Amino acid sequence: MALGTGYDQQACYLARAMEVLGERWTLLIVRDCFFGVRRFTDLREHLDISRAVLSQRLQQLTDAGVLERTGEGGHAEYVLTDAGRELWPVVLGLARWGQRHAPAAHPARRFQHEACGTDLDDAGHCPACDLTPEPGAVVTRPGGPPSDRADRVAVALREPHRLLTPLL
Amino acid sequence: MALGTGYDQQACYLARAMEVLGERWTLLIVRDCFFGVRRFTDLREHLDISRAVLSQRLQQLTDAGVLERTGEGGHAEYVLTDAGRELWPVVLGLARWGQRHAPAAHPARRFQHEACGTDLDDAGHCPACDLTPEPGAVVTRPGGPPSDRADRVAVALREPHRLLTPLL
Repeated sequence: MALGTGYDQQACYLARAMEVLGERWTLLIVRDCFFGVRRFTDLREHLDISRAVLSQRLQQLTDAGVLERTGEGGHAEYVLTDAGRELWPVVLGLARWGQRHAPAAHPARRFQHEACGTDLDDAGHCPACDLTPEPGAVVTRPGGPPSDRADRVAVALREPHRLLTPLL
Repeated sequence: MALGTGYDQQACYLARAMEVLGERWTLLIVRDCFFGVRRFTDLREHLDISRAVLSQRLQQLTDAGVLERTGEGGHAEYVLTDAGRELWPVVLGLARWGQRHAPAAHPARRFQHEACGTDLDDAGHCPACDLTPEPGAVVTRPGGPPSDRADRVAVALREPHRLLTPLL
């Protein structure tokens, strides 16, 4: 299937964005980076993804300027660049859409403005303060009983956590 | 590669949304539906996608409640459901992100509030009217010289067009 061919001819920046982000897993990696997950091993355990696929996606995201890689070998860490952080409204918007239209059994994670504790709306706006906080001023917390997943990331996310702050 | 397995275990609505929308092409089909493209043939020509892939993606989107199929056989039309229309901020947000961070040679398409002609911001908000218009109240127009693509959709989109209104 010549999936890639016509893609290049799509005179639309959505098509360009999807070249960077449209692969399975890619936005889930970006989400975990917003949660403050930084290391390959933690991403792999939390996403339950093969080493080969994760390596390839991290390389793509780094090449595209979404993530920056620091450190070496087993000490490498991946953090969102400014361009990556600008994906926050899209990540939140897709999660909220999934919450409404792709039902699952578990309660939705909450995202709150750290300064006042108010839940953000679907656009990431804080209705109490009438501003849209940067992701670094947003706290996420479980929306109900914690999941029974036992990987380190899932366990750490049982507590409230400020986005972009190292989680582990 | 057991890509699908862990996906189901991701206790996150972003993961659920990506199950519906995370395939290559899927969001581009949704974008064309916002443009008012409704027929299989028009989608296929504009997206330059194989019949088999397009059929499968349309079926997925219909099963997931994003599109509704009306008519029969060659007269079938696909239109966005209410759930599908709620993807508008995500589609716009991704397109704007691509515009900033996945450069291409062509000018970006403009999206304007029909009532006042003002360009929407990245969140789809009209700064002049201080409201966020529904996509059916948004007009798109080329941001510069039209592309030289000759398919019917590309030609029709050289003129200003209200979203969700049939294009052809």
